Amino acid sequence: MTDTTIGIVGLGLIGGSLGLDLRAQGLRVLGVAQRLATAHQARDRGAVDEAGTELARLAPAGIIFICTPIPAIAPTVAQLAPHLAPETVITDVGSVKQPVLTAIAPLWPNFVGGHPMAGTTAQGIAAAQRQLFANAPYVLTPTPTTPATSVARVAAIVRRLGARLYTCSASEHDRAVAWISHLPLFASAALIAACEGEPDGSVLTLARQLASSGFRDTSRVGGGNPDLGTAIARSNRQELLRALGRYRDTLEDLIAQLEAEDWPALEQWLQETATGRSRYLPPETETACGPR
Amino acid sequence: MTDTTIGIVGLGLIGGSLGLDLRAQGLRVLGVAQRLATAHQARDRGAVDEAGTELARLAPAGIIFICTPIPAIAPTVAQLAPHLAPETVITDVGSVKQPVLTAIAPLWPNFVGGHPMAGTTAQGIAAAQRQLFANAPYVLTPTPTTPATSVARVAAIVRRLGARLYTCSASEHDRAVAWISHLPLFASAALIAACEGEPDGSVLTLARQLASSGFRDTSRVGGGNPDLGTAIARSNRQELLRALGRYRDTLEDLIAQLEAEDWPALEQWLQETATGRSRYLPPETETACGPR
Repeated sequence: MTDTTIGIVGLGLIGGSLGLDLRAQGLRVLGVAQRLATAHQARDRGAVDEAGTELARLAPAGIIFICTPIPAIAPTVAQLAPHLAPETVITDVGSVKQPVLTAIAPLWPNFVGGHPMAGTTAQGIAAAQRQLFANAPYVLTPTPTTPATSVARVAAIVRRLGARLYTCSASEHDRAVAWISHLPLFASAALIAACEGEPDGSVLTLARQLASSGFRDTSRVGGGNPDLGTAIARSNRQELLRALGRYRDTLEDLIAQLEAEDWPALEQWLQETATGRSRYLPPETETACGPR
Repeated sequence: MTDTTIGIVGLGLIGGSLGLDLRAQGLRVLGVAQRLATAHQARDRGAVDEAGTELARLAPAGIIFICTPIPAIAPTVAQLAPHLAPETVITDVGSVKQPVLTAIAPLWPNFVGGHPMAGTTAQGIAAAQRQLFANAPYVLTPTPTTPATSVARVAAIVRRLGARLYTCSASEHDRAVAWISHLPLFASAALIAACEGEPDGSVLTLARQLASSGFRDTSRVGGGNPDLGTAIARSNRQELLRALGRYRDTLEDLIAQLEAEDWPALEQWLQETATGRSRYLPPETETACGPR
């Protein structure tokens, strides 16, 4: 068992992209997929050195990345545990951390929660790509009982991906991603739903025809994978509800301001949102596609 | 006076891009800017044949595009009118139509309201580009008293830009753009404002660090020009309030669903938003920048 051999369970966009980068770094990558066809496709694409459907084949790995959908993470760890030496570090890539840590604590003490903030709208091994994690945030959420050496071992791999490494508690992570990832998803979905609720058929048709870049960008994450959205809502329900409640309150304040026709206050508020946004996004992320 | 000579007042992104395309079509373009430096820059960029700061120089034009900010449209028409023959068609590019039509009706009967749904985050003559309107929606909003020949003359120009031409009433336009342009702007701004309201400083810092493509896209239009946002809210206040009210109601329903933990209903709802979104956007608009 050595950290030069890496295991990956779940060979989709994230697992496949991880494999491509780690193999390019000279590491040996063993993969497990639910379907044999996916395992073969991952091998053909060069994302893994070997792959199959049995978790037992990951026994030689020093670090194992669980890249399944959130609901499958803990069951996968339970099935994997009997095959592993206790030094093996398991980590995951789930977008919610507290419930994952709680479920896995009794199954595998040598677990380091992780969340790479990278992705595309495409899914599956066919969408896997090199450098997906380069310059993207990658969060680790150790607990007070997580072995420090295990955190360091996962961090060493994350750095090799070129990702920006952050470490925080699972609860801080879940609250922060509720704001910048989960609230945007549901605010965006609600935008689509509200538009579709327009009762005047000719206005609705016109709205659909006139939709342009503003609607495209604002609605993008709300038009994504329903399974993922539901899994996020289930697993981060409290934090999502907190963020949605505050968002609703912000809209109430905005509506009151529009009703009062307080235009200087509105312009000031829009100035603050423009300034506020710049605190979130490194300038280079804006220019990747040219002017938007 | 002939339609082979076109006037443009306001040589920013829209006016400048219009000039570039029309000149490439062999038309003669006369420009007027508020500042002489802008007029010279437009001429140097090839967006106009001649430009200056006096509206009187547009007298030879058959069609004049008013490309100023919304609050300046009617005052510009009032100053322009004494210099024009009655056959001259004036059109505008304002993103709200009913108040513009109402203000201009007593000033210039030969007016055709227009709205090209195109733009970038960049502003000003330096950002002007060829083909900005190609494949973009371009709406004309004639009234029962607008001369049909005038509508046809503006439509002929719009087609030469390669835009997708739509004709509807000003009230239908204003309601439709409230949904797909103005609501997204304020929903997006409220998202930024709500995030910035997080009281826990370490969570707020983390949220800013972790923001990625989902936040970037959903917050983009809410981080735009405060002047434009305020002008839109002022001029389309009733329709924006209607859309915001329905959006707030949609969020209330969503919050209730999350509180009830009705996951099958949530997944169904997200399936509907994913399907709904596809009714708004032609597939090619999604691939312009590759996977997002």
